[in-house]
Amino acid sequence: MAVPPSIYPRRLLPLFLGLFQGTLLLFFALFVTYDEPSAQAEDTNLVANQVYSTFPFFQDIQVMLVVGLGLLLAFLPHYGFSAFTHNFLLLNFSMQWALVLQGLLHHFHHGQIHLDLHKLLISEFAAVTVLISVGAILGRASPCQLLVMATCEIPIYLASEWVIVTCLGVLDVGGTITIHVFSCYFGLGVSKALFRATQPPLHPKETPTASSDLMSLVGTLILWVFWPSFVAVLCQPGDAQHRAILNTLLAMSAGAITTVVASSLLERDGKLSPGHLQNGSLAGGVAIGVVADMAMPPVAALALGSLSAVACVLGFRFLSPLLRRKLTLHDQCGIHNLHGLPGILGATASIVAVLVASKDTSGPQPSQLSPAGGNASEVVEGQKGVAGQALCQAAGLAVAVGASLLAGLLTGAALRLPCLARPPERLCFDDSLYFKIQDEAESPEPDNSAEEGALALKEQV
Amino acid sequence: MAVPPSIYPRRLLPLFLGLFQGTLLLFFALFVTYDEPSAQAEDTNLVANQVYSTFPFFQDIQVMLVVGLGLLLAFLPHYGFSAFTHNFLLLNFSMQWALVLQGLLHHFHHGQIHLDLHKLLISEFAAVTVLISVGAILGRASPCQLLVMATCEIPIYLASEWVIVTCLGVLDVGGTITIHVFSCYFGLGVSKALFRATQPPLHPKETPTASSDLMSLVGTLILWVFWPSFVAVLCQPGDAQHRAILNTLLAMSAGAITTVVASSLLERDGKLSPGHLQNGSLAGGVAIGVVADMAMPPVAALALGSLSAVACVLGFRFLSPLLRRKLTLHDQCGIHNLHGLPGILGATASIVAVLVASKDTSGPQPSQLSPAGGNASEVVEGQKGVAGQALCQAAGLAVAVGASLLAGLLTGAALRLPCLARPPERLCFDDSLYFKIQDEAESPEPDNSAEEGALALKEQV
Amino acid sequence: MAVPPSIYPRRLLPLFLGLFQGTLLLFFALFVTYDEPSAQAEDTNLVANQVYSTFPFFQDIQVMLVVGLGLLLAFLPHYGFSAFTHNFLLLNFSMQWALVLQGLLHHFHHGQIHLDLHKLLISEFAAVTVLISVGAILGRASPCQLLVMATCEIPIYLASEWVIVTCLGVLDVGGTITIHVFSCYFGLGVSKALFRATQPPLHPKETPTASSDLMSLVGTLILWVFWPSFVAVLCQPGDAQHRAILNTLLAMSAGAITTVVASSLLERDGKLSPGHLQNGSLAGGVAIGVVADMAMPPVAALALGSLSAVACVLGFRFLSPLLRRKLTLHDQCGIHNLHGLPGILGATASIVAVLVASKDTSGPQPSQLSPAGGNASEVVEGQKGVAGQALCQAAGLAVAVGASLLAGLLTGAALRLPCLARPPERLCFDDSLYFKIQDEAESPEPDNSAEEGALALKEQV
Repeated sequence: MAVPPSIYPRRLLPLFLGLFQGTLLLFFALFVTYDEPSAQAEDTNLVANQVYSTFPFFQDIQVMLVVGLGLLLAFLPHYGFSAFTHNFLLLNFSMQWALVLQGLLHHFHHGQIHLDLHKLLISEFAAVTVLISVGAILGRASPCQLLVMATCEIPIYLASEWVIVTCLGVLDVGGTITIHVFSCYFGLGVSKALFRATQPPLHPKETPTASSDLMSLVGTLILWVFWPSFVAVLCQPGDAQHRAILNTLLAMSAGAITTVVASSLLERDGKLSPGHLQNGSLAGGVAIGVVADMAMPPVAALALGSLSAVACVLGFRFLSPLLRRKLTLHDQCGIHNLHGLPGILGATASIVAVLVASKDTSGPQPSQLSPAGGNASEVVEGQKGVAGQALCQAAGLAVAVGASLLAGLLTGAALRLPCLARPPERLCFDDSLYFKIQDEAESPEPDNSAEEGALALKEQV
Repeated sequence: MAVPPSIYPRRLLPLFLGLFQGTLLLFFALFVTYDEPSAQAEDTNLVANQVYSTFPFFQDIQVMLVVGLGLLLAFLPHYGFSAFTHNFLLLNFSMQWALVLQGLLHHFHHGQIHLDLHKLLISEFAAVTVLISVGAILGRASPCQLLVMATCEIPIYLASEWVIVTCLGVLDVGGTITIHVFSCYFGLGVSKALFRATQPPLHPKETPTASSDLMSLVGTLILWVFWPSFVAVLCQPGDAQHRAILNTLLAMSAGAITTVVASSLLERDGKLSPGHLQNGSLAGGVAIGVVADMAMPPVAALALGSLSAVACVLGFRFLSPLLRRKLTLHDQCGIHNLHGLPGILGATASIVAVLVASKDTSGPQPSQLSPAGGNASEVVEGQKGVAGQALCQAAGLAVAVGASLLAGLLTGAALRLPCLARPPERLCFDDSLYFKIQDEAESPEPDNSAEEGALALKEQV
Repeated sequence: MAVPPSIYPRRLLPLFLGLFQGTLLLFFALFVTYDEPSAQAEDTNLVANQVYSTFPFFQDIQVMLVVGLGLLLAFLPHYGFSAFTHNFLLLNFSMQWALVLQGLLHHFHHGQIHLDLHKLLISEFAAVTVLISVGAILGRASPCQLLVMATCEIPIYLASEWVIVTCLGVLDVGGTITIHVFSCYFGLGVSKALFRATQPPLHPKETPTASSDLMSLVGTLILWVFWPSFVAVLCQPGDAQHRAILNTLLAMSAGAITTVVASSLLERDGKLSPGHLQNGSLAGGVAIGVVADMAMPPVAALALGSLSAVACVLGFRFLSPLLRRKLTLHDQCGIHNLHGLPGILGATASIVAVLVASKDTSGPQPSQLSPAGGNASEVVEGQKGVAGQALCQAAGLAVAVGASLLAGLLTGAALRLPCLARPPERLCFDDSLYFKIQDEAESPEPDNSAEEGALALKEQV
């Protein structure tokens, strides 16, 4: 065997990241600066208030992404270290990459880029798409593959978000369509193109243990607690934000209980499935994002939360095995059940909400259909009309699904490049491939020697 | 054996929860709405400030209840999944049930219910009582029993809180009397009536392991960190809230150190007991709630924190075994030591604080004895007089203990209904009764076959 | 064997802590009070706003110190309970001790001490130094030794901080020099004097397992998320605080990625080392503290974060083994790599930042070199001149290193007192020496009998 392929993958990761960090430094040196300190006391107060109103939300979201999501992904018993570290690495890489891309776009239009907390937040939202998509191929992809995936996904997300929010004027304050639906179908596309028609048998390390399932449940609960911050952070302060928080709380609370009902009914012996709990409890939060700040009665939030939980649990029970069997579609974490189905449900709900709101008040009013905030252009409801807005919501959903699937398939094909070093099946789901850790202490199984043989074999590759 | 009893319990949980969710939807559809969006900029600012001042506290409390309390209850090594999920399910169920009940009361007086963050918070406080009471019977009760308990406890809590705060005018901003004392004796009442005179031998799965004890300690620390938010959230903004935060911090800090002293002195070899640390460190927070915003010097908070920790540790060492032996009273988590004794201590301290404050300033002044906030009616100190207020505090404590014990005993009797499916003793403290999880990986003990036999037996029941 | 030594150590801990709590109560009773409640509505609003602007930061820092740092230190597989509890105990003890000392100083100048959240925060910062220093001797010191160390370190820290910030006027808003550098060299001094020239062989319980390494990584991530709050809490509200938050976020994000690059390049097989990840990801936060609110472009924060991560990883790979071999310097957690090297790097960066800022604007302006906040006296840049300020930064670093090393050596010598009961080497790194826990369930190793023999032997000592 030739030496280069053996060296290449092991050095590709630091090479790739090192080059990127260099580019980032250069870009920041050339184009990025801070706002001039404000001279007047009034401005200082304004800045201080902005910090106090955004920063706690920002911290909540950081906890969700770094700790909560890391724990949620740690359900693979021998892959916890990888799940945490890859999640953490991808979050930082994708956020910086989104900062660069958004900065470049901005630079060509307005010159020097003034960094602030809001821009970091927008970039963090872009990074979320990567973290979700990874769920489809968790455990079977190398870090290099994940980084290449992130490199492709961020610009496509930014373009798709621009089309959906800025061009189509879709209302989506919590990122249900732009983030959840997009990243779900992107991830599924990547998975399909990467694994093609092969359907690997169940890996012995793929089954969660009691303790890894428990860690994952703690992750779910952390995400559950802080989800309202994620949905409401970009809302307009005041009533819209207050309502977004309440709607999210209601949807998540109803979803939690409905998950127990659905999971219990689906099993013959009435036992609850950890996977259902870990995902179903969060489905309400995914769905509510797109309608959280719209004018709708509280009961709608409850109903949407319950429906999403049912859809998520049914998806795990029936749709996932079907997709696996019929389409040989591999979805490791079930992101289609947590992000795809509830996302589509939420988008549908937003169409209904737009149409119903108009009937209630004979014509939509900007004060009720509050703009999606963020970098969305001001949506002029009046010109578009109710049916137009409803159509836009549907078009946005179509764009998110179509663009992400297509781009995901292309990205997945690129990930098949041999130099990206996809781990062989028998070494998947194992931290010891990437980390210097003692796995023996945890697994006093007799297959240690076989494992060492496999590792020795890998060294030769 | 007849088939119905086998089917009934397994379907009772989803049936019960499903019916409840339906009722909730109906209730929300008929009676609950949001505030009209405010038209004026000033109102918007006001709402925004209310959100910023309440929401971080609210999130802290959610973390406490969902993550912290879940971890604290996970000290049973094979029951972590159940502890987390039942805690989470009960929190959501009880909060929704409290929303419905409070909404109905409100509706009959004022018509349409306008939902806001404050109402959710009040309902969450009601749910806390259930989460505490559960500690007395943790591991030996089925989810159906716990839900029925919650169904009974919430209305009784609301009635008791109304009597104590609204009728008697008791000052109790942190819920020491209304929440902690009430829920403790309710739980003990339930336990007594449920288990009666039987004293089960020590279950082999009842003993914590090093790792489950560690999880529980992490839960304690999370609760410890966020406790000031729980005590201070309903305080009046400004000095009263500032003082409540400081008093809670002082009490909890003193309690933490005193716990180490007390636990170390009580054991012959000077080793610390995990159970003492997990509970004693929080005792100060329980006791300080009732006096947190009263006019008292900082040293009083320190002393109260230390005393509560001592009471808690002594309770574990001497009182719990005594109650178990003499009254065959079963208290799985030692809630009497963490919530009962420190609660009574806090209530006593509040009587002293009321009496002393008057001497300092020759007559109580409303600005010093700040009102208990929340939905408490404005307390007019002047009319009542110092002695009157002190008497009220004592009466409040008596009502909390008496009402909760009586109601708990009745509820516990109801929980003996066979259809609620109390698990047989040998299947207690085991996640595998309610969840589809691999417990074998964690317990490579030789009794696996015995366990499977037991489970097979259960299937037939 | 004589009886007294056997009794003394086991009773020394509660005796010491009990006496301290008594002193604390006396001190508080005599000297400490709260502010009078403000009579006017404006003042109430002011207090409320101060609470809302400080309290969320304060809670973030509490989570860092109690939960995050506890988890980070739990990388020793049989020492998690001790790591958490000692960390928690030392935090509370040191904070109270700092409150007493600062209060005494204040009392002699201004009379009665008015307690507020800011004073508690300052005391908490003092306590951080102890928690960092402990890392050098973690696992090999008794709780009594740790408490004596805290007793010595707090007054020395307060004196050193007074010299550095108040006398020299060093700008150090995030405590890089005053806290991180100081506590690192204090800890190393203690370690050197305590263990002298003996270099213990690798203890069998010193090696992390996969699960203990994972817990530690979760601790790192919690610290990583909340670090901006630690750096920015004492900044002046408005632009300075906003910039401090952004700079910290940038430095930590760059540091996270650079850690992966550096760790991967340093190992022949390209695998990542858990220790590098756990520490390198935080190095950026240590370094950025001293320059976080200074006038510097965002690229400088990125570069400093990357450099610190490289320094930290290189330190673990090359410097630590060297110090161990050449100086027989024992540094259990590698605090020199996480706090020492990045701290020195940050201090150097602050000198550069001061010099460069002046060139940019021809003369330093108070509005750009914002004062270090906290109890630092107002720094008058104009009088001192740029070179003077740069010299002061260097002098501050020298004072922090020199004073802490000297004081650490003396403290370490004091810790050799036999009555402080340093555990014998074979009983180190084991929770069962201090806690009543079942360690067997976790360690089904054949050396159980040997361990029991050792414990039995210990009972006789």
